[in-house]
Amino acid sequence: MTGSSNKLNVHALLWQDEQLHVLDQRQLPEAVFYDVYTEAVDIAEAIRSMRVRGAPAIGIAAAYAVALSVKKNFKQNDASWKDKFDAEIKVLAASRPTAVNLFWALTEMQNKLADIEGDPIEAMLDYAADIHQQDIAANKAMGELGAEVLADAKGLLTHCNAGALATGGYGTALGVIRSAVAKMPRNVFAGETRPWLQGARLTVWELAEDDIAATLIADSAAAMLMKSGQIDWIIVGADRIAANGDVANKIGTYSLAVLAKHHGVKLMVVAPTTTIDFAMQEGSQIEIEQRAASEFLPDCYADENSLVDAWNPVFDVTPAELISVIVTERGVVFNPVETGMSELKND
Amino acid sequence: MTGSSNKLNVHALLWQDEQLHVLDQRQLPEAVFYDVYTEAVDIAEAIRSMRVRGAPAIGIAAAYAVALSVKKNFKQNDASWKDKFDAEIKVLAASRPTAVNLFWALTEMQNKLADIEGDPIEAMLDYAADIHQQDIAANKAMGELGAEVLADAKGLLTHCNAGALATGGYGTALGVIRSAVAKMPRNVFAGETRPWLQGARLTVWELAEDDIAATLIADSAAAMLMKSGQIDWIIVGADRIAANGDVANKIGTYSLAVLAKHHGVKLMVVAPTTTIDFAMQEGSQIEIEQRAASEFLPDCYADENSLVDAWNPVFDVTPAELISVIVTERGVVFNPVETGMSELKND
Repeated sequence: MTGSSNKLNVHALLWQDEQLHVLDQRQLPEAVFYDVYTEAVDIAEAIRSMRVRGAPAIGIAAAYAVALSVKKNFKQNDASWKDKFDAEIKVLAASRPTAVNLFWALTEMQNKLADIEGDPIEAMLDYAADIHQQDIAANKAMGELGAEVLADAKGLLTHCNAGALATGGYGTALGVIRSAVAKMPRNVFAGETRPWLQGARLTVWELAEDDIAATLIADSAAAMLMKSGQIDWIIVGADRIAANGDVANKIGTYSLAVLAKHHGVKLMVVAPTTTIDFAMQEGSQIEIEQRAASEFLPDCYADENSLVDAWNPVFDVTPAELISVIVTERGVVFNPVETGMSELKND
Repeated sequence: MTGSSNKLNVHALLWQDEQLHVLDQRQLPEAVFYDVYTEAVDIAEAIRSMRVRGAPAIGIAAAYAVALSVKKNFKQNDASWKDKFDAEIKVLAASRPTAVNLFWALTEMQNKLADIEGDPIEAMLDYAADIHQQDIAANKAMGELGAEVLADAKGLLTHCNAGALATGGYGTALGVIRSAVAKMPRNVFAGETRPWLQGARLTVWELAEDDIAATLIADSAAAMLMKSGQIDWIIVGADRIAANGDVANKIGTYSLAVLAKHHGVKLMVVAPTTTIDFAMQEGSQIEIEQRAASEFLPDCYADENSLVDAWNPVFDVTPAELISVIVTERGVVFNPVETGMSELKND
């Protein structure tokens, strides 16, 4: 891994000269800095350390990582190259537990590899780039579908960052907001999204870069904002969607869903079909990643004898019954509690 | 105003040698530092700058400030001393708009002054100290009343800091938690309370100082915590209570109230009767203080041409229908939506 301080563009991931350029999102909005990777295990570390985050972006980064692993290990021309490759896949799979797109991308790339006879390097690099481009195309399709559902709704609230920064480009929830704002002016609000402040650091930055005005709120102010009548729709992404339409997403999404129900505000989830885990019947089966207390606990409580601890789940699960629509690139599911996701199953 | 770095004790306010020692809560939990005041207008600035915060503590600080103003201006033995005094009262009244205890304390002290013949200085200083001691006694009474209502409830969640640090001592919501934990072990959770982090900086620190273990959560994790079944009661303070039982309190309280209703969790508001504003029929009449966007907006958006702004209300209003009980030093109001606060009216 090497570094470059050039501002390449506002993209989470850029593939150039067979290197993966990863925007270090931990430094936003103060600094725009790309790390450059050529090793799968280093990309796993970039995922683990949250340089790259957002389920679709993690999947794409993992796809490039698989291709780079094939390139490195196959080149060594050693009979055991597949063992070394498999070991790197394991490291990638362990980088973030909740992102189903990660596992989808690893499986997709491994299946592709199995189909190739002879030198797989070029085909694997091309396939990773295909996955990346397909994600951008899917986001644009979702943007149009979602904006159509919003019609002339004026007040939009989003949470976390389901934007260009979380995907291959354009974004899921922010893709819908981009497409919606292109049709007519809207009032866009973003929750700051503790503890990592993805809303404050990433979402409002990303929107402003695209000339979309946004108003930041403390997460706990969302209820009062809804009560004031200024919000028509809450629009969020998803980290995993169960077969019945339950959605795992950034902590606080479930809170917004309950508050939306109480205030007659609608909730839209926007995610590519790769986020759907048909093997998981319902949301209660989704493993929720817990992160370190130190993410928001003041340092003075770090001592192990401290009486102060923190509970830090990264995701929560929103039951389908609280979701008005789920927008995917293959179509919109209205009232997912009635139908689940089955109509989108591709088999 | 002078400073002292001695750790005097864990109190927001200490009255010693006719000086008001104010714990600078902005420096907690890293540093325990008291500023020492002898001037009313400096105390107004301590309130405005949030060195001292919490409705009851603001009222007590204002009472001492009034006494100090009498002391300074009456001593000057000038026929116009009352004009100078009145001007200082105006500065105090403008220091925080929402805290009804502030206006209560100013009125109480002015009424006392009107009753005194001759030199009022000693009587006024004594009366401020009385108000302080009465607040501590009221908190202990509320602690017992509230703990009785909780019975053997195990899981308690509080928001912001309605503790010793927000009052004359012992606390309102945290007074109930202190009294409850004294009877049996409980699991105490605290929301970090954005944007000022009163929960993270003050509440868990204050509880740990009294040997009470506490678990900090992101505000947006409260819904998931309630869904997990770990919370029986939410216990909060109040900045103002309308005659019908609607409660203005730290932003996020209304959010917790809606979430509690959805999850079958009960909501207890703990506040002295001085917090009740009988002249205000309902919560919608309460003026909500808006604070600067800069409290949580990253600096890079401070430019006036920035497309990014913030909405930063300090309080929200929880309607009486979402409140299970309101605990005061004069008794407990169950289901305030049915009766309002009228039974506590002292006339």
